[in-house]
Amino acid sequence: MTSQRPREACGIFGVHQHPDAAQLCYFGLYALQHRGQESGGIAVSRDKTILCHKGMGLVPDIFQKQDMVKLGGGTGIGHVRYSTTGGSNILNAQPFVVQHKGRHYALAHNGNLVNAHILKRELEDEGSIFQTTMDSEIAIHLFIKNLKNATLEEALCRTALGLEGAYAFVAATSHGELIGMKDPNGFRPLCLGKLNGRYVLASETCALDLVQAEFIRELNPGEIVIIHEDGIRSFNPHPAPKRHFCIFEYIYFARPDSTIFEKNVYETRKAHGRALALEAPVKADLVMPFPDSGMYAAIGYAEASGIPFEMGMIRNHYVGRTFIQPTQEMRDFGVRVKLNPVKEVLRGKDIIIIEDSIIRGTTAKTRVKALRELGVRKVHMRISCPPHRFPCVYGIDFSSKGELIAASKSVEELRDYLGLDSLHYLSIEGLVKATGIEKKGDGFCMACFDGKYPVSFDASLTKGCLEG
Amino acid sequence: MTSQRPREACGIFGVHQHPDAAQLCYFGLYALQHRGQESGGIAVSRDKTILCHKGMGLVPDIFQKQDMVKLGGGTGIGHVRYSTTGGSNILNAQPFVVQHKGRHYALAHNGNLVNAHILKRELEDEGSIFQTTMDSEIAIHLFIKNLKNATLEEALCRTALGLEGAYAFVAATSHGELIGMKDPNGFRPLCLGKLNGRYVLASETCALDLVQAEFIRELNPGEIVIIHEDGIRSFNPHPAPKRHFCIFEYIYFARPDSTIFEKNVYETRKAHGRALALEAPVKADLVMPFPDSGMYAAIGYAEASGIPFEMGMIRNHYVGRTFIQPTQEMRDFGVRVKLNPVKEVLRGKDIIIIEDSIIRGTTAKTRVKALRELGVRKVHMRISCPPHRFPCVYGIDFSSKGELIAASKSVEELRDYLGLDSLHYLSIEGLVKATGIEKKGDGFCMACFDGKYPVSFDASLTKGCLEG
Amino acid sequence: MTSQRPREACGIFGVHQHPDAAQLCYFGLYALQHRGQESGGIAVSRDKTILCHKGMGLVPDIFQKQDMVKLGGGTGIGHVRYSTTGGSNILNAQPFVVQHKGRHYALAHNGNLVNAHILKRELEDEGSIFQTTMDSEIAIHLFIKNLKNATLEEALCRTALGLEGAYAFVAATSHGELIGMKDPNGFRPLCLGKLNGRYVLASETCALDLVQAEFIRELNPGEIVIIHEDGIRSFNPHPAPKRHFCIFEYIYFARPDSTIFEKNVYETRKAHGRALALEAPVKADLVMPFPDSGMYAAIGYAEASGIPFEMGMIRNHYVGRTFIQPTQEMRDFGVRVKLNPVKEVLRGKDIIIIEDSIIRGTTAKTRVKALRELGVRKVHMRISCPPHRFPCVYGIDFSSKGELIAASKSVEELRDYLGLDSLHYLSIEGLVKATGIEKKGDGFCMACFDGKYPVSFDASLTKGCLEG
Amino acid sequence: MTSQRPREACGIFGVHQHPDAAQLCYFGLYALQHRGQESGGIAVSRDKTILCHKGMGLVPDIFQKQDMVKLGGGTGIGHVRYSTTGGSNILNAQPFVVQHKGRHYALAHNGNLVNAHILKRELEDEGSIFQTTMDSEIAIHLFIKNLKNATLEEALCRTALGLEGAYAFVAATSHGELIGMKDPNGFRPLCLGKLNGRYVLASETCALDLVQAEFIRELNPGEIVIIHEDGIRSFNPHPAPKRHFCIFEYIYFARPDSTIFEKNVYETRKAHGRALALEAPVKADLVMPFPDSGMYAAIGYAEASGIPFEMGMIRNHYVGRTFIQPTQEMRDFGVRVKLNPVKEVLRGKDIIIIEDSIIRGTTAKTRVKALRELGVRKVHMRISCPPHRFPCVYGIDFSSKGELIAASKSVEELRDYLGLDSLHYLSIEGLVKATGIEKKGDGFCMACFDGKYPVSFDASLTKGCLEG
Repeated sequence: MTSQRPREACGIFGVHQHPDAAQLCYFGLYALQHRGQESGGIAVSRDKTILCHKGMGLVPDIFQKQDMVKLGGGTGIGHVRYSTTGGSNILNAQPFVVQHKGRHYALAHNGNLVNAHILKRELEDEGSIFQTTMDSEIAIHLFIKNLKNATLEEALCRTALGLEGAYAFVAATSHGELIGMKDPNGFRPLCLGKLNGRYVLASETCALDLVQAEFIRELNPGEIVIIHEDGIRSFNPHPAPKRHFCIFEYIYFARPDSTIFEKNVYETRKAHGRALALEAPVKADLVMPFPDSGMYAAIGYAEASGIPFEMGMIRNHYVGRTFIQPTQEMRDFGVRVKLNPVKEVLRGKDIIIIEDSIIRGTTAKTRVKALRELGVRKVHMRISCPPHRFPCVYGIDFSSKGELIAASKSVEELRDYLGLDSLHYLSIEGLVKATGIEKKGDGFCMACFDGKYPVSFDASLTKGCLEG
Repeated sequence: MTSQRPREACGIFGVHQHPDAAQLCYFGLYALQHRGQESGGIAVSRDKTILCHKGMGLVPDIFQKQDMVKLGGGTGIGHVRYSTTGGSNILNAQPFVVQHKGRHYALAHNGNLVNAHILKRELEDEGSIFQTTMDSEIAIHLFIKNLKNATLEEALCRTALGLEGAYAFVAATSHGELIGMKDPNGFRPLCLGKLNGRYVLASETCALDLVQAEFIRELNPGEIVIIHEDGIRSFNPHPAPKRHFCIFEYIYFARPDSTIFEKNVYETRKAHGRALALEAPVKADLVMPFPDSGMYAAIGYAEASGIPFEMGMIRNHYVGRTFIQPTQEMRDFGVRVKLNPVKEVLRGKDIIIIEDSIIRGTTAKTRVKALRELGVRKVHMRISCPPHRFPCVYGIDFSSKGELIAASKSVEELRDYLGLDSLHYLSIEGLVKATGIEKKGDGFCMACFDGKYPVSFDASLTKGCLEG
Repeated sequence: MTSQRPREACGIFGVHQHPDAAQLCYFGLYALQHRGQESGGIAVSRDKTILCHKGMGLVPDIFQKQDMVKLGGGTGIGHVRYSTTGGSNILNAQPFVVQHKGRHYALAHNGNLVNAHILKRELEDEGSIFQTTMDSEIAIHLFIKNLKNATLEEALCRTALGLEGAYAFVAATSHGELIGMKDPNGFRPLCLGKLNGRYVLASETCALDLVQAEFIRELNPGEIVIIHEDGIRSFNPHPAPKRHFCIFEYIYFARPDSTIFEKNVYETRKAHGRALALEAPVKADLVMPFPDSGMYAAIGYAEASGIPFEMGMIRNHYVGRTFIQPTQEMRDFGVRVKLNPVKEVLRGKDIIIIEDSIIRGTTAKTRVKALRELGVRKVHMRISCPPHRFPCVYGIDFSSKGELIAASKSVEELRDYLGLDSLHYLSIEGLVKATGIEKKGDGFCMACFDGKYPVSFDASLTKGCLEG
Repeated sequence: MTSQRPREACGIFGVHQHPDAAQLCYFGLYALQHRGQESGGIAVSRDKTILCHKGMGLVPDIFQKQDMVKLGGGTGIGHVRYSTTGGSNILNAQPFVVQHKGRHYALAHNGNLVNAHILKRELEDEGSIFQTTMDSEIAIHLFIKNLKNATLEEALCRTALGLEGAYAFVAATSHGELIGMKDPNGFRPLCLGKLNGRYVLASETCALDLVQAEFIRELNPGEIVIIHEDGIRSFNPHPAPKRHFCIFEYIYFARPDSTIFEKNVYETRKAHGRALALEAPVKADLVMPFPDSGMYAAIGYAEASGIPFEMGMIRNHYVGRTFIQPTQEMRDFGVRVKLNPVKEVLRGKDIIIIEDSIIRGTTAKTRVKALRELGVRKVHMRISCPPHRFPCVYGIDFSSKGELIAASKSVEELRDYLGLDSLHYLSIEGLVKATGIEKKGDGFCMACFDGKYPVSFDASLTKGCLEG
């Protein structure tokens, strides 16, 4: 995938009653950092109260040793975020912590509610005030309202039924309970694990691996779990939950070493690459990814096609840190500083580039041009998913439809625009088959490819609509 | 006054529709920094929204040039704070900003509500959630509830009638209105000024001076002013407002160059010193303050008594910055690092020290001991107010009653405890007469001296009661 | 004194073989902070090596607890600096530490060498290279050359005889020796003290007071002391040392609670004020300083004249911290932010302002104007020293001669320029007599007043000449 | 290669008279960051002076936009460093800048002098003083001595003949000259490029690529180039220069996209992998590197053996940032946080791991154990160079000989220690042949493998010997 990259809403993590709760959350978030680099936070419930520390930036920059000591042990939840709704500032960092009648509640959310604006209007009519532009704040208001004359379980069920859209929540109460909750389509991943007898929740299994927790299972669509001292209670208030896993988690977001929705991501990507080799073969000297995206599909393509795999462009390991921008004369600097092509490997060759997606096409165009100038002979590109033609309303921040280049250009036009000798996308059928879920329709949300949105929404809803 | 020093709740400032609103707030807060050094914030209303920047520490450390640029012009309010209720952290910094039905409101509060816990319970029963432990958050919840089917003016009046205790508020709306509001006893100062045709509100006139605004008048007890594009509207919903100005503002808190409650502080302190010289004369070689507290009363005492004024102890101008604590062997370091006695001025002399108050007595005791060791012959102390025997519930953080040394020791016991040759406090009558308000009972709150609290409160109310 | 203020070169401190050496240096520098706020450093000799920590800014900002722990105990020296020669950067911070034949030497210098450029040329001819623009680096090169086939004592004597100008040095060797050294005119103060049996050296006694060391004596002009395990050795290699104490240390630089050159500064300043009252009496309602400069002379003037002393302008205690500059419209902001006049005290009055010096006159002019606008009737100014007409080449950074307003304007012209009703300077005779050194010519350097420079120098020497 | 990793001394860069000199150096260092992450610096010569900015940490953390603006254009040199001699602190950061007779010189050094201690003793006998423990300071002292009655060219030649060991220097003079210099064995890489008519020097061609300079040629062993306004002068004062390129630059240090000593690094590493497949074939399901080290050799091995290439362990992209260390219970955390094995790819498989070296073996052992626990069946390891048995004295900081595990264990012992099924190292012959230099003896320094040191040295010389 070439920039401007889609950005995942969030990664979430939780652990029930553990003496190292804050530190486990820290490492859980560390493993989930790829899901959100804008802000992060950890909240720990202990002694009938909840402490929280949040900040802007990457996890190691937000938390220092003394923060861990202060947060300490208990029931902890953590969150890393790239905003999909709400502006980018510290107020909107999560977990979101509130007090009500002497009890504290902390919530961390991955996803996007499509009825947030309706809920907010209703709440405001009853006198609720808001301090953030996050739909998570709406969810917690609704939950507190639902708590009136209700048990925790009842309040959670009523809240779940009131929310529409994509959500995977972890929450903690000042009584030490840990809560996990998924929307009835199961758009976003959330799995349950166990560490020394204590339950753990995480967006991806790579977080379980890092804290050495054992993987138990993925939560079901619509499932709510309450973990307390006596064990775990699971219930599902939704009449007809149905799998609509976000397929783009497999293609791009999730870490290759994770298992999500019960399949390994690395193997799935390789399968996409192999499928692509079968669907769109071409003669060439080598197959290469733009590192690191497309890496595993490229290995799969090379394997299936027998064409040698090479790392034709070298990634600068120190990029990612902010650096001083060069003067205008140093053209195409942004491309070179991240990836340097290896002249000796590429010059005079026919090459196949494997990418996982094309969003706006700008970066791909520049890179292809750089390869041409270096003396590459033929440049073929293969994309390991279908063209992105529709925006996501369930928690992934693509560009708007207007910016999705595949929404306005045919594959041929795009090939010419990018300066390629050939361009092929993996078909929807190929993608579904390679991913390995048989029944189309039950299984994945592929709205970004086919425009079939599993949960209807107000078309005027756009990012920022909650800010007014 | 000797430490541990009482700490003022807050300083507040506001300006209506000015292109340099943020910067004027910055300088207003700069001038009011003595009223709160724990945190500060500025909120500016412009284009139907409110931007806010808050932080821990001193004003110049919280705000950088780029923050000023970002906040810009419009209707601005600012706040510096030392917490009286609520813990010390950034969440509790003010102004407090909320959204409701597409409108934003920002509030900054100086004072302390005595019915906060009752109001909070009522609000929670209706489903309100809280994110801070500030009673200001309670006030804004109440205000939003009162807005239902009401004009801004009506909502403010209803809210004012619902709040009990001490409050001086400045507030801004996203429609550009600036609001000022005082409790019906007028405990805390708040004055109105004008700058190039634009209204300004400030805790003390020193803030008007710094921004070169013209002083108009002190707000009346119970008065509410709404400043909007067409001018200023004033109203007073309270049936029987009555002056109970905090007399300790004159004695200690306010800056000497300020006029509060319509009298100059410097002159008032000198008058206290003169009254003290008449009430408690003594022969001595020199009169001196512990700088900088007691300075003006000492000048007044010297003037009335004819005894020379000296600066017998020199203040280190760089103290105030955090410094590394010395090892245990360097005893009494805390005293010496702040004030160094001038041996040549003091040795062998009889001296009169003028202080503005004694709270716990610890520092005074250590300083007197240091003077004795240096070779001072006789040490007389005169305090420019009566003994502090009762805690303040209206926004000043003395020690609790148990820590007020004058609550448990007679003047004679205190004299012996401090190692003095003589000790006298200014009498209540002398204080009132010198301050210049004739009718005792209408005029000042002197609860910290006489225990007569103008607004009754639940005795179990203590700092932190709102945090549960 | 009104800005732009003269800036002292430096404050220096040293302690011999003490387990808390670093911390004692820290507090010594803390007490001497008024002598230099640009950079600071501490070097501690222990275990045959020297550790050093330096930084830009104020002492509490430069050193953290861990630095103190790392530097630890041994023989320590410290330095605070405002640069007189050499640019303002960390390279030029002191102490200056070098290695030679396995030994380390650390040096801290207060003063200014007038033959630095000659010495540097000679050293370079022999192959010496330089990394800084400090004349202290020259001194240490010379010392190392002199060490060849010589004892430490011999090398120090030879070095002392080679240096011309003003210097007070403290130095430490990796063998644990502490060295103090003064030029043969004794321009700059340096005193010897004792703390629990260990020797201490400091620019002023206020540093001894803070660390609770006992004052022993001021070093003599030209004296060198080497303090080692067996005691102290003093020697004086100069044929005819003669007292030329910098009189401006008394008038302005030194802290009032210090004793330098064996007289207390506070008492000396009061004596200047009394002499001024006798030399230039005038009828007025009050005497006031521009705080805090002129404070003690004002007390003396009030005492001798019988006119009441007032603090007519209030200093903002938080100024000193960097703050955001206001827009152009907020005119004269720089004056008001530092000092706010008390209207009620000043309006309609005839006042006498006591200042300790006028350098460029700009600030004084603005302040007088502000007082006039406030409604002060008559403004008389009295300066507690003669007019500054000549630059200092011995370590004080006045403006250049061209900028010294008294160099180009008569007293009458200056009075009119500043907008005063009257202006008088203390006479040289009055100053000398009040300071209490009888024999004119032996006693003080008054070159800044009379142009008689005790050590001749190359007139082309200006600040920065060593930087080429 | 498995940790503890060898650390390269330095990366150096220079540009002659360019208006964007500082920025070009910044980007040059950015590209060379892999050669030193401890400190960095840039010095720019302009207007007869040299400005320098240095700091600890990574290039983007050391330099801010304002530093670039201040340094500006002219002749610039830059340096990134991991210390081989001298302690780790800012004093030892380079470039090293000195002044002599009004001229400034800046020097940046990659390598290690083996006669530094002898030179230092001689210089000290003549009165030289030292401020750092860098052998670069010695070189510049020697150069200044040699400048006496000599031209720049003569002084450089004399200095070159006096230095023994490994050095690649770039230097700048305040007259704008840029100097490049290599020791007569040519241990360290240094190449010449051209950018818009201006000469550039860099350790590796990846730095030329980033600034879009054209590669001209590698400097010859012993060559000195002086670049000035009129062009470039090259000369070689050494009687018998001979190629002894550091072969470990190919194996590990240099970036794969660089060309050093005139061969591409990526292709060379692949050739090593292919040679390894021929020397030590084994049946397995997959070939994998421990990313990212061993990557290119693994691709070569896979290609030559026909065994599929996989990325069996996933690197966490955010590692590298400092993070909070976990509690003891989270065992092997350091391994997992960097690399997470992909269970689904590895379980039940026979695997071949390609590494580029084993230094202490600790990390390799832990990783192999983790793979075993995961269920990998057979683990074969192939190392793309011979065993490291001897320390490097020419600028690479391996562990000392005592810590080199291959110095004390046979290959069989090491195989058992690491828990492998088989272990093979590439032979010296295979390495030389694959790298492509025919004549053994002329070509590479392989002292770390065979103990044949091209330049003799005092065996007592160890890191830190210059610090006394």
